[in-house]
Amino acid sequence: MIREQFSTKLQSLISDDKWLIVQDNYDSKENLVYETNFALTNGYMCTRGSYEETTKTSLPSTYIAGIYDKSEAFMRELANTPDWLGIKLYVERNLLGVEDCELLEFKRVLDMKKSILFKRFKLRDGDGRETLIEGYRFISRENLHRAAIKLFVTPLNYSGIMEMENILDGTVLNFKDFPRFRVKHTNTLEVSNLNGKGCYIETETRDWNTHIGTGTIMRVYKDSERKNLIKSKRYSTFGEVALEFMDFDVKENETIVIDKFASIYTERDVKKEDIKINIEKELSDFILNGIEAEVKDHTEVYEKMWDIANVTINGDDLIDKALRFNLFHLMSTANPKDDTVSLGAKLLHGEEYGGHAYWDTEIFMLPFFIFTNPEAAKTLLKYRYNLIGAARENATFNGFKGAKYPWESADDGTEQCPDWTIEPDGSCYRCMVATYEHHVTADIAFGIYNYFRLTKDLDFMLKYGAEIIIETAKFWVSRCKYNSEFDRYEILDVTGPDEWHEPVNNNCYTNYLAKWNIEKGFEMLELLKNSSASIYDDVTSRICLIENELEAWKEVHDKIYIPFNKEDKLMEQFEDYFKLKDVVITEYDKNDMPVIPAEAREYGIKNTCINKQADVVMLMFLLGDEFDKDIQKVNYDYYEKRTSHRSSLSPSIFSIMGLRVGDNSMAYKYLRRSALVDLHNNQNNTREGIHAASCGGTWQSVIMGFGGMEVDKHNVLTFNPWLPEHWTDIHFKIYFRGLLLEITLSNTSIDAKILEGDSDNLTIKFKNKELVITK
Amino acid sequence: MIREQFSTKLQSLISDDKWLIVQDNYDSKENLVYETNFALTNGYMCTRGSYEETTKTSLPSTYIAGIYDKSEAFMRELANTPDWLGIKLYVERNLLGVEDCELLEFKRVLDMKKSILFKRFKLRDGDGRETLIEGYRFISRENLHRAAIKLFVTPLNYSGIMEMENILDGTVLNFKDFPRFRVKHTNTLEVSNLNGKGCYIETETRDWNTHIGTGTIMRVYKDSERKNLIKSKRYSTFGEVALEFMDFDVKENETIVIDKFASIYTERDVKKEDIKINIEKELSDFILNGIEAEVKDHTEVYEKMWDIANVTINGDDLIDKALRFNLFHLMSTANPKDDTVSLGAKLLHGEEYGGHAYWDTEIFMLPFFIFTNPEAAKTLLKYRYNLIGAARENATFNGFKGAKYPWESADDGTEQCPDWTIEPDGSCYRCMVATYEHHVTADIAFGIYNYFRLTKDLDFMLKYGAEIIIETAKFWVSRCKYNSEFDRYEILDVTGPDEWHEPVNNNCYTNYLAKWNIEKGFEMLELLKNSSASIYDDVTSRICLIENELEAWKEVHDKIYIPFNKEDKLMEQFEDYFKLKDVVITEYDKNDMPVIPAEAREYGIKNTCINKQADVVMLMFLLGDEFDKDIQKVNYDYYEKRTSHRSSLSPSIFSIMGLRVGDNSMAYKYLRRSALVDLHNNQNNTREGIHAASCGGTWQSVIMGFGGMEVDKHNVLTFNPWLPEHWTDIHFKIYFRGLLLEITLSNTSIDAKILEGDSDNLTIKFKNKELVITK
Repeated sequence: MIREQFSTKLQSLISDDKWLIVQDNYDSKENLVYETNFALTNGYMCTRGSYEETTKTSLPSTYIAGIYDKSEAFMRELANTPDWLGIKLYVERNLLGVEDCELLEFKRVLDMKKSILFKRFKLRDGDGRETLIEGYRFISRENLHRAAIKLFVTPLNYSGIMEMENILDGTVLNFKDFPRFRVKHTNTLEVSNLNGKGCYIETETRDWNTHIGTGTIMRVYKDSERKNLIKSKRYSTFGEVALEFMDFDVKENETIVIDKFASIYTERDVKKEDIKINIEKELSDFILNGIEAEVKDHTEVYEKMWDIANVTINGDDLIDKALRFNLFHLMSTANPKDDTVSLGAKLLHGEEYGGHAYWDTEIFMLPFFIFTNPEAAKTLLKYRYNLIGAARENATFNGFKGAKYPWESADDGTEQCPDWTIEPDGSCYRCMVATYEHHVTADIAFGIYNYFRLTKDLDFMLKYGAEIIIETAKFWVSRCKYNSEFDRYEILDVTGPDEWHEPVNNNCYTNYLAKWNIEKGFEMLELLKNSSASIYDDVTSRICLIENELEAWKEVHDKIYIPFNKEDKLMEQFEDYFKLKDVVITEYDKNDMPVIPAEAREYGIKNTCINKQADVVMLMFLLGDEFDKDIQKVNYDYYEKRTSHRSSLSPSIFSIMGLRVGDNSMAYKYLRRSALVDLHNNQNNTREGIHAASCGGTWQSVIMGFGGMEVDKHNVLTFNPWLPEHWTDIHFKIYFRGLLLEITLSNTSIDAKILEGDSDNLTIKFKNKELVITK
Repeated sequence: MIREQFSTKLQSLISDDKWLIVQDNYDSKENLVYETNFALTNGYMCTRGSYEETTKTSLPSTYIAGIYDKSEAFMRELANTPDWLGIKLYVERNLLGVEDCELLEFKRVLDMKKSILFKRFKLRDGDGRETLIEGYRFISRENLHRAAIKLFVTPLNYSGIMEMENILDGTVLNFKDFPRFRVKHTNTLEVSNLNGKGCYIETETRDWNTHIGTGTIMRVYKDSERKNLIKSKRYSTFGEVALEFMDFDVKENETIVIDKFASIYTERDVKKEDIKINIEKELSDFILNGIEAEVKDHTEVYEKMWDIANVTINGDDLIDKALRFNLFHLMSTANPKDDTVSLGAKLLHGEEYGGHAYWDTEIFMLPFFIFTNPEAAKTLLKYRYNLIGAARENATFNGFKGAKYPWESADDGTEQCPDWTIEPDGSCYRCMVATYEHHVTADIAFGIYNYFRLTKDLDFMLKYGAEIIIETAKFWVSRCKYNSEFDRYEILDVTGPDEWHEPVNNNCYTNYLAKWNIEKGFEMLELLKNSSASIYDDVTSRICLIENELEAWKEVHDKIYIPFNKEDKLMEQFEDYFKLKDVVITEYDKNDMPVIPAEAREYGIKNTCINKQADVVMLMFLLGDEFDKDIQKVNYDYYEKRTSHRSSLSPSIFSIMGLRVGDNSMAYKYLRRSALVDLHNNQNNTREGIHAASCGGTWQSVIMGFGGMEVDKHNVLTFNPWLPEHWTDIHFKIYFRGLLLEITLSNTSIDAKILEGDSDNLTIKFKNKELVITK
């Protein structure tokens, strides 16, 4: 057990090994990857896993959900806020740091069960002094404005004076190690000693002047008693750094305890003139409560979260833990109490993609939340509803009607996908994604409908969901163009999920979902009408929906062009895709990932059939009921040979679809790829943040792919598992239409029961056989 | 030849090897030592030899003569000002830095002849790209507000885009790597792009709000033509950092040139509202002139300086170069045009001792300047004259009369030796130095008289010098206390040069110099009287000197107690010194430095005869004419066995005195010790700055010790050389009473002539034989 490698006082706190991600060696080249993987978040804020004593290679960052700024960047992005982690310990001016001492022992452990990052370092300084430093940090899930570090420090072969710094560093930047993009998103307004109590920095974002306050206070005492040990203290303002210097006596083999309390408030939480007061109050309460009590409250919340969200894969420790790692970061970042923020493509764990929400949220992440935390799922969808005004404006400004959601969404719902980006060579590159890639609007409608289908949350639909679906249907009607030659409606100049072909005409995925969206628009109008005249009137007047425009809707819906050759069952990804040079993937690299054929590169990939990611196959995944299995298989087989999986959104979907069509040859490889993307840094960009879509995709791959879980067209929850040979079973819980179910699946059996809910029984299907489960 | 290891274009610029200090390897542990030894100064400002790309261990500092601040420090100290050196070069985000690449070649060369720091790095980055970076930096001696860096950058095996940052960093601190003492001495007022031209930071000292402006501008062009290569440029303010990001194309094996121009002005130079304008103008003129032209002007000034100051020791390359290194830093720091600053104990090269002037200036450094740059010597003494008002107040506040100079002097002449210091353990330590160590006041009078004796600069004495000597004489009269029991005057509670016995009564050195000072006070009164009644009246009325108080002067002068046993010729360092436990040094360490006997440590050193440094011997060195050679020898022999040389002020004096008394056994060892103190970091504290007193002491040791140069009591310049066996001869120039002399000395011969001056001949003595030298 890993916990046995820690001192007794920490052992009781550390979970079983299956909950632990362990770093055994210090290698500065791995720092940025660990900063992402060991980031902690409570959904309100996220602090990357950098070292308290600082290291040369590091991007220390604390992001706060909803705190965006543009300044010189190309888009509004998550603004880095003051780094509260800084603790430096010195003995006779020797910094007790991982890069400054010989490492006699080194261990960092992420305890996913408790969302605590533990460490244990035994350091030998240049003068031969040996010090044991153990401790942990956490960001409280119980009190979202609290974070803390606790250290146990033991001089092993000396006594003397230890010096310490409580550092609060406001010099933080975004893209600090990327000179061309480096940007400061904040003005520093106040650097002070928090009215004599510790360190305080108040900054504001540069565009909107949103105030952000961060405060830290430190305590040092003996392990055995709570009496203060700090002999002297001196506060300094060093530019944008607030720093308290302190010292205290240490004795050989006597452990002292160091607590660092931190609190963050922003103008999004309280009036700006109250930020500092709130922080002082929060810190004072926190100190009174103590770290141990806060940890207890914090871990109790996590226990409840995991009780539902945890999935156990018996027989496959690696994937079992990897899935847990994906779910840990995904579920930790969602904040069911804040419907003004969504989940960024890198969660709150890194600065890449600016912390923006993409279709990733509704398509890849949302199902996990619908099934394990419907409240969080609803909040994510309410975020979209709150920004419907911006989506309406976005449609208008682009010459359309209804609501067109932005490709990238931050705090105000305006399009945050830049029109221009800078290439590494300094040239400007016209980025056409926002101009052409419109499917996100249908994806959001899909997410909402999917939520409704799985939860039957009528209240949400009447208040929020239906309006979005109707308004997005209206968008699609206006987006389609009539082609009189063929008497059909078309979507021209469009990009589907496969971004390597941009733009194209009549992308199947987009056209199909547009048609579906219009159809659901009708369905929602009926729903409203049947529910209440006042709601119907209210919504339709907001949408400016005139009854007779519905004829146009029907016309478009019926005549929208889908390039689908029903005879050979193959769907053409977009119009004339089949005229492209056909190149097939034949080789796989050492990670079992497709090697793009040299021939494709010669031709120019966009002139060939080689895809970046699932496109047609994605459509069949989402709307599986609409396509017979043999159609699904034909398309899977065809596109599987032509998809490079250069997006982390791709492997999980192919994993599921392979299993659905009965081709399990690649499913486990795709799952591995998806599950380990960050833990093994197999895309080599984990430094930039967690691949959030992949987290959600991995859950879907295990539950909906290997577990074969679907809600069929008759609304029955069905399981058709295919587990790899070495998997004994999988065990998980889900919410389904107000019931909480506990399920254990093997290849041949299901063990399922109702744990909570209004109904005492539920009919489900296992391998096409109906059965009734009970409480 | 070292120069041959550089590219052709640099070879013509680099001097012969004897002028070069070479660093062949990069070792981060040596960074701080090289930062001191490779610091460059023009007397107005000094920039330490840190790397342009920054390294983890570094104290980048630019100090400006006269810019002091106290803030939270214990005393007013040289305030660190924005670091203008920063240049970072990147290829695909790989920083081309000594710590970030593999070093295929590494060389830094301090060219002392030209005061230019050259470098040549061949770097291989993580992607295998190899880059040659050669170049140099200098701080212009021709235009004191200018500094520059020139780099020649050649991609050796790649073409591509190079990115660059022009960094001006205002986050600088004093004692940055000493947490307990770390202090920020400036407020940052403006961080801007210098009206679109580059980077600009304006700070102010925190106590006196003295404004300091620093500006930098960069240019990049092809070696062959002057055309701009910068393709894009972006300015950012990152808190207290001004930064310009730029990029340009580079081609394999094509050299590009990078120029960085910097300028500094302060409110000491111009009105604060004109600082920025002056910097813009200075930079614009500098760029117009170009670096090459500025280097030419700069090196021409150095050529003139070295023409007089250089000393050649034929037969001893090590000491020849080491002496040159000492003189290089010493002469470079003196600014004959600014009489408001003196030379700090660490020059402008480090932060230790706060940049304060001690007796080190008048006793150790001044003789070098009197003989090689009398103008600079005069300026150093005028600094003391300018602060005579503060010295008068200092006397009054301490209950005395006349002028009492502070032990440590910064810009305003108040005592800057702190009453309290913090020990490394955090405790406060009452520092009694300022309270007891008064000899500095006599040392300054001695320096002035010595200047007069050697230059016959009557004008200076009438205007400035005499007043100081008279006013300090008046101080000493008031300082002495009558002891009726012995009918003598005493100086009680006093510390002599040997600070290990503090305080004592009747320290010989202090009492003797006090007596001498009073005597010279009489002489100066006569001088003034004989020169002009109006000057005499003027000075005496400023001093408030009433004629009849001179009787008291005479009384004190005649009856001051000197503990001097004329029979056994031994002078007692202070009253009852001989009653201390007598411990004698018998062992020497591997550097030939005395090992303090364990017995002395047991007793407590202050209870023994063991001294920190020359005290009685120092007196005999200064006032050699007053003591017969056999007295000198007795005292040298006695104290040589009891002096630990724990001050770098000690070895040079023992070296000279040994030679004067005919004991050459230790002289060369002491010289080595003194000459190499920084070059070999043999006190292990070169990181803190150059040992300035040792620089001057080394010159005195070579010229006045080994060269045996003295001006005898008959005012005749005499030479009585004793050169070590391996020395062929020494060659040097000196000014003597308005004549410039060129002298070559061997053990048996002198070759001397007059190079300049009003007189065509001069009678000198060589080994007690008179001879007349001519033009």
